[in-house]
Amino acid sequence: MQFNFKDSIGVRDNVFREGREILAPYIAYVQKTIDDGGYDKEEGFANLPGDEVLLTAVQTLIAEKVTGKLVYVVVLGIGGSNLGTKAVYDALHGFVDALELKRFPKLLFLDTIDARYRNALMILLKERVTSPEEILICLVSKSGGTAETIANAEYVRVELEQNLGDMSDRFVVITDPNSPLQKKADEHAIAVLTVPEKVNGRFAVLSAVGLFPLAAAGIDIRAMREGALAIQKTCLSLSVEENPALASAIALWALHKEGYTIHDTFFFNPCLESLGKWYRQLMGESVGKENDLHGQVIHMGITPTVSIGSNDLHSVGQLYIGGPKDKVTTFVVAEHTGPERTFEEGLFAGLVPELRGKTPNTIITAMFEGTKAAYKNHALPFMEVVFPDISAHSLGSFLQYKMFEMMYLAKLLNVDAFDQPNVEAFKTETKRILK
Amino acid sequence: MQFNFKDSIGVRDNVFREGREILAPYIAYVQKTIDDGGYDKEEGFANLPGDEVLLTAVQTLIAEKVTGKLVYVVVLGIGGSNLGTKAVYDALHGFVDALELKRFPKLLFLDTIDARYRNALMILLKERVTSPEEILICLVSKSGGTAETIANAEYVRVELEQNLGDMSDRFVVITDPNSPLQKKADEHAIAVLTVPEKVNGRFAVLSAVGLFPLAAAGIDIRAMREGALAIQKTCLSLSVEENPALASAIALWALHKEGYTIHDTFFFNPCLESLGKWYRQLMGESVGKENDLHGQVIHMGITPTVSIGSNDLHSVGQLYIGGPKDKVTTFVVAEHTGPERTFEEGLFAGLVPELRGKTPNTIITAMFEGTKAAYKNHALPFMEVVFPDISAHSLGSFLQYKMFEMMYLAKLLNVDAFDQPNVEAFKTETKRILK
Repeated sequence: MQFNFKDSIGVRDNVFREGREILAPYIAYVQKTIDDGGYDKEEGFANLPGDEVLLTAVQTLIAEKVTGKLVYVVVLGIGGSNLGTKAVYDALHGFVDALELKRFPKLLFLDTIDARYRNALMILLKERVTSPEEILICLVSKSGGTAETIANAEYVRVELEQNLGDMSDRFVVITDPNSPLQKKADEHAIAVLTVPEKVNGRFAVLSAVGLFPLAAAGIDIRAMREGALAIQKTCLSLSVEENPALASAIALWALHKEGYTIHDTFFFNPCLESLGKWYRQLMGESVGKENDLHGQVIHMGITPTVSIGSNDLHSVGQLYIGGPKDKVTTFVVAEHTGPERTFEEGLFAGLVPELRGKTPNTIITAMFEGTKAAYKNHALPFMEVVFPDISAHSLGSFLQYKMFEMMYLAKLLNVDAFDQPNVEAFKTETKRILK
Repeated sequence: MQFNFKDSIGVRDNVFREGREILAPYIAYVQKTIDDGGYDKEEGFANLPGDEVLLTAVQTLIAEKVTGKLVYVVVLGIGGSNLGTKAVYDALHGFVDALELKRFPKLLFLDTIDARYRNALMILLKERVTSPEEILICLVSKSGGTAETIANAEYVRVELEQNLGDMSDRFVVITDPNSPLQKKADEHAIAVLTVPEKVNGRFAVLSAVGLFPLAAAGIDIRAMREGALAIQKTCLSLSVEENPALASAIALWALHKEGYTIHDTFFFNPCLESLGKWYRQLMGESVGKENDLHGQVIHMGITPTVSIGSNDLHSVGQLYIGGPKDKVTTFVVAEHTGPERTFEEGLFAGLVPELRGKTPNTIITAMFEGTKAAYKNHALPFMEVVFPDISAHSLGSFLQYKMFEMMYLAKLLNVDAFDQPNVEAFKTETKRILK
């Protein structure tokens, strides 16, 4: 994975030095958390990719539950309980699931309780699933009390049992140790994987939350963990040149002070859109805070947006170039490779003379370079992340890099990366209305 | 369609009066454009839903090209050439296309030139399409020279002709009159529908751009047009109480002056996400401008974001409630209805006591009301649009209402709603690199 933070970001070296000095003690603290191992601090999420006990637990359960007959894995979860899983799955397979009708097993995500989607899903499952071995339901809720997830679980269970009989054996519960959900699962002999309590949901993609359903879908979770571990080393360096998480955290912090209140992650591979949505939660919840670490009201936050190239050049590109100077951009691209025909004079090809002698991969690469050049000409600050390929390893690296970036950015902004107190505002009001 | 602009928006009556006075001459101008008919002004898009010649042209071509054998309609287009079509299709069908494996015809969208998606699409088409009548390709490019669209058209044509022979008869070109693409199509006896030149792409959903592919997919385009015409009448009223486009344009303008630089459209029906992406282009390109109407550099713009409930309460909800006061929200919801079981004491249901005796529809409605209450408690400005149902008629109303809103908002912000000069910045750089 390659990074370019400095060429077009417009942040001076002394600002990078200043940020590094602020963060140095915290990086040492994170390093110590890793050296100590375990999950007694929120930063302990960094210990997940090296946790062999976790890997063994996941693999043992996979061996028990997954056979060649598996067709659908249904993930019941919302927010941190499904966004990371969906990010990885969509990048590798989900992006073309509607086209690859014969590739199985497929992951299906049921998050909110919208009746239309759930009803269509239930019709599909009832038609296509003829024996319990063909389906696996991952019920993911850290607290064990997420209304949407529990409601969907109840629905799916009752509907499937009409045709297939007792489904306890085909549920896997992923939750905090000792949550009410864990107890309920134990009573009914439903398999459970636990998530360390202090690992926050949006930092949990490399816990059982992501590993189990991804492994069930045949994704190489070892490679994903190795990707995370490989980049983690660089993310603990005190050198801004070496440490991508440090560099981008400082850039975002410095630009926020100058009025850049929106962070657009602009992916030039459409299969990475769900990865953008995972990052949107990570940034939104981690640094969007009413109070700072001392309890002062500050209404801090950087608004994350997700753009897709080349599509969005034809949508919001005009705003990005011509509009207010309030956005810092991270371009993310994986090289566009693979065999492609060149365009010669054809029925349509002649209408765009630049196409001649080029392949589609050459053209989209030129569009990416052209977009960066236009940003540069208009003095719009940007960073760049280049994936060597779209693989479990690369995705693992990106996920871990971004979680480190966010932890550092929160520290620079003087907010708690690991809480989300205002989410209670919705829940309290909803409960009041339901009563 | 019901609207609530005033209760929670925090804009005073005198500001609404001021906005209305600024806009009154322009509303008269738009009314005259409609009375005069035709397409010699950009505002002429308002004449599309009443254009009987257009409807006849579309229906005649549908009768010629669409039979019961049609399985796939492939839309080749990007930006304004596919976002509106996708908005309507996804709301009605596309949202569950990956689950409803037997429902046909399906629309498939090929926009950017990413190789993975195109290759998967080509494999599907080559496997499933055994005769030309089963497929229809809509090639949509107003200028006729959009690189991605032309490249994809060439690819799809060459690949399909390997198995199916000459496909000229199964292409429908939708473009500006006298574009090079129209001429090329004429040479090869390919059917053409034209789009009035002055109808800008992002205001073109009710032209042949949207009508033809949607009708080919079996969507009731008459109802869509009727929905647009019905709301258009109210969108020409000089009363802020009656005219939703006037009210929301003024609210967005007034709040922008107070530092609300982000407009979040927060849909509580996940099937409307693509409608959000259509609006994202409409707002991004129409009011994101480097210059005002007098050529002064102003870097105007309001950044559109799209949120989905209840999912995003578990993602960016923390940021929205606790973070900076820079967002104005439009909540959009269609009533959640239909038969649903109530939750009683079940294996999982007991874990969330509020579920008992409720249906999922009751719960998601409570979440929507709870969200609004939380916004109100935190003095976050919002408006509300309630769809009576998710139908072609309602979608037509919403699309037309939003296009009127944007036209009015641009006028208030003193920018040209109908140009996108900065998009050339990307194109010029890309061409330079390709040379």
